[in-house]
Amino acid sequence: MAPTDKKDQKVSLHTVERLSVYRRKLEELSADEVEYIHSHQLAALVGVTPAQLRRDLASFGSYGNIARGYGVKQMSRTISQIIGTDSMQNVGLVGVGDLGRALLSYRGFEERGFHIAAAFDVDPDKVGRVFAGRRCYSLDKLETALVDLQIRILVLAARPEGLQEIVDRGVAAGIRSFLNFVPKTLTVPEGCFVEHIDISAKLEKLSFLSRQQNDRTEVAE
Amino acid sequence: MAPTDKKDQKVSLHTVERLSVYRRKLEELSADEVEYIHSHQLAALVGVTPAQLRRDLASFGSYGNIARGYGVKQMSRTISQIIGTDSMQNVGLVGVGDLGRALLSYRGFEERGFHIAAAFDVDPDKVGRVFAGRRCYSLDKLETALVDLQIRILVLAARPEGLQEIVDRGVAAGIRSFLNFVPKTLTVPEGCFVEHIDISAKLEKLSFLSRQQNDRTEVAE
Repeated sequence: MAPTDKKDQKVSLHTVERLSVYRRKLEELSADEVEYIHSHQLAALVGVTPAQLRRDLASFGSYGNIARGYGVKQMSRTISQIIGTDSMQNVGLVGVGDLGRALLSYRGFEERGFHIAAAFDVDPDKVGRVFAGRRCYSLDKLETALVDLQIRILVLAARPEGLQEIVDRGVAAGIRSFLNFVPKTLTVPEGCFVEHIDISAKLEKLSFLSRQQNDRTEVAE
Repeated sequence: MAPTDKKDQKVSLHTVERLSVYRRKLEELSADEVEYIHSHQLAALVGVTPAQLRRDLASFGSYGNIARGYGVKQMSRTISQIIGTDSMQNVGLVGVGDLGRALLSYRGFEERGFHIAAAFDVDPDKVGRVFAGRRCYSLDKLETALVDLQIRILVLAARPEGLQEIVDRGVAAGIRSFLNFVPKTLTVPEGCFVEHIDISAKLEKLSFLSRQQNDRTEVAE
């Protein structure tokens, strides 16, 4: 079946990951007041082949100008539209412990089009309170609040114990995407996605590397 | 050259990443009061082949008991010792903005053997103040404080502008490992490591996936 318009195109997750990298570099270039860039230059800066970069961009109809190259700001905007970070969507946060509160105060979510519309916790001392402008609901109200606030993404920052059950309830209530900050393996049905930000694993890797270096032991890549 | 003891072994980064995953699963099992596990069971739980798991563990001399399997707690402790998270090391934090303050209040660092011993910022309003028990130094004092506090790892949570110069100064002062939370590409000389925790990129991927699903458009894996 031939694609009829851009929205109907099959886009691979790997393409999205690369687009995200291109956009980051374009923002850096824009901050450095670079207005135009040729595809081979941008490809070299982000470490992909020029052919790969042109394929990724051409599939969305973003053709550059042969003489001057791509317009840096325009291309960055186009990528935002493709990724969908140019407008806000509501997300829910599960767990208002120290990590959860840290995430509530982190502006990066809003900058990328995510508004934490509600927080959930089991602790009766937290339920009903407002943290960084967001109301904390009892976890019992999860399903109701998700529907009321049109939340389709859950950010997970709760304790590992019982987290799978919360995910299962989210899935049953129509959540398809999870951003998991908890060092815990989760399973979701096909068609659902869990993105894992595993700070502990990164720390463990750095710890190992740093100690190996202090011991002057050779580290294999 | 043959390895003479454990410390002299060449350990690959991929092994460390897998060890980190094994340890996480072992902690979960321990929380569920599982005392022993057979290697093929653990391998299935973490999604590696039994042969791979046995190779990873055997290289450190961690042999299981044939009848009962591996002791869950003992194996978890052994992996901690190998990774080096069983004792504390000092790290420095660059940037005391909202992300930096969030990291200062995040207990996960201490739990993984990292003590944020000092924070650095350029803002005169922040310099000299104490945030979550840690003194904020002027970035001008970076080199001196790194030596005084025996810091070998820097956590980066500053603005992208000027970050590369801070990294260069860190490298010149003997820092070999960086944990970068800033959406910015950094370059370091050979023998130095940058681990990137890119929350923005994860958010962009989720944003795209979630919108595709709302549009009922097919997403290719």
